[in-house]
Amino acid sequence: MRMYPGLSVVTLGVIDVSQSSQFYERLGWRRSKGASNPSVSFFGLNNIVLALFGRDDLARDSGLVSAPSPGLPDGFSGITLAQNYGSPGAIDLAFDSAIAAGGKALVEPRRADWGGYHGVFADPDGHVWELAYNPFFELSADGTLSLPA
Amino acid sequence: MRMYPGLSVVTLGVIDVSQSSQFYERLGWRRSKGASNPSVSFFGLNNIVLALFGRDDLARDSGLVSAPSPGLPDGFSGITLAQNYGSPGAIDLAFDSAIAAGGKALVEPRRADWGGYHGVFADPDGHVWELAYNPFFELSADGTLSLPA
Repeated sequence: MRMYPGLSVVTLGVIDVSQSSQFYERLGWRRSKGASNPSVSFFGLNNIVLALFGRDDLARDSGLVSAPSPGLPDGFSGITLAQNYGSPGAIDLAFDSAIAAGGKALVEPRRADWGGYHGVFADPDGHVWELAYNPFFELSADGTLSLPA
Repeated sequence: MRMYPGLSVVTLGVIDVSQSSQFYERLGWRRSKGASNPSVSFFGLNNIVLALFGRDDLARDSGLVSAPSPGLPDGFSGITLAQNYGSPGAIDLAFDSAIAAGGKALVEPRRADWGGYHGVFADPDGHVWELAYNPFFELSADGTLSLPA
């Protein structure tokens, strides 16, 4: 099974989740209280989910070295693009197809700390893609997520 | 007018547009021939457009210094997030609201080299947002774009 042509979540690595969340809330965007917690914010946009997560945590979860000093570059773009899938098995297959296409494995598919399952790879320019199964979010057939209020 | 809650285009800055495009085509994703040219590739995904554009060009268009040496960090994440709007006037208003919310202006709204109109700002962590009017792409009411085949 190949990767479906879609994008579920864009995650921005941030220095301070609360401060950055306030910026997006000032835009008038609504933070999902049900999905968010102090260490991660989720905003359900019209066609995609925007997530804010600590930059160092995001690097570590992506199999990259974290950048302890804010502002110091570390080869990590600070952004990850995620596709959600309906099962761990679907991720295994899609991940294999991405590696076969030339993606560089960063995290082989495995159970994730947050209770789901994911694999992470980099495209030829180092852009980070995560393939994720998240049992806590409702997933539609085209890969878009529905967050709780 | 505020920024609508949506995302039209994710643009990845790449070293070689052709090479990177081939990677995404190997995933089975279809490059829009009508919208793409040798310097930029557009892939119409289910819910969003993925664009590949030279990293240096992307930095320059975003009002940031370009990074002449691949792999050398320059404070630019290498990715931009874009919202499309139906008119230059709508961009002016949305841009003002983003700056009022605390965004940092990188490119004040103006005509763009590619024939449209855009403004660019950074969020508190330096993530780059472009607000764009593109007369060549069909725009739906929720901000999603339809590319030519």
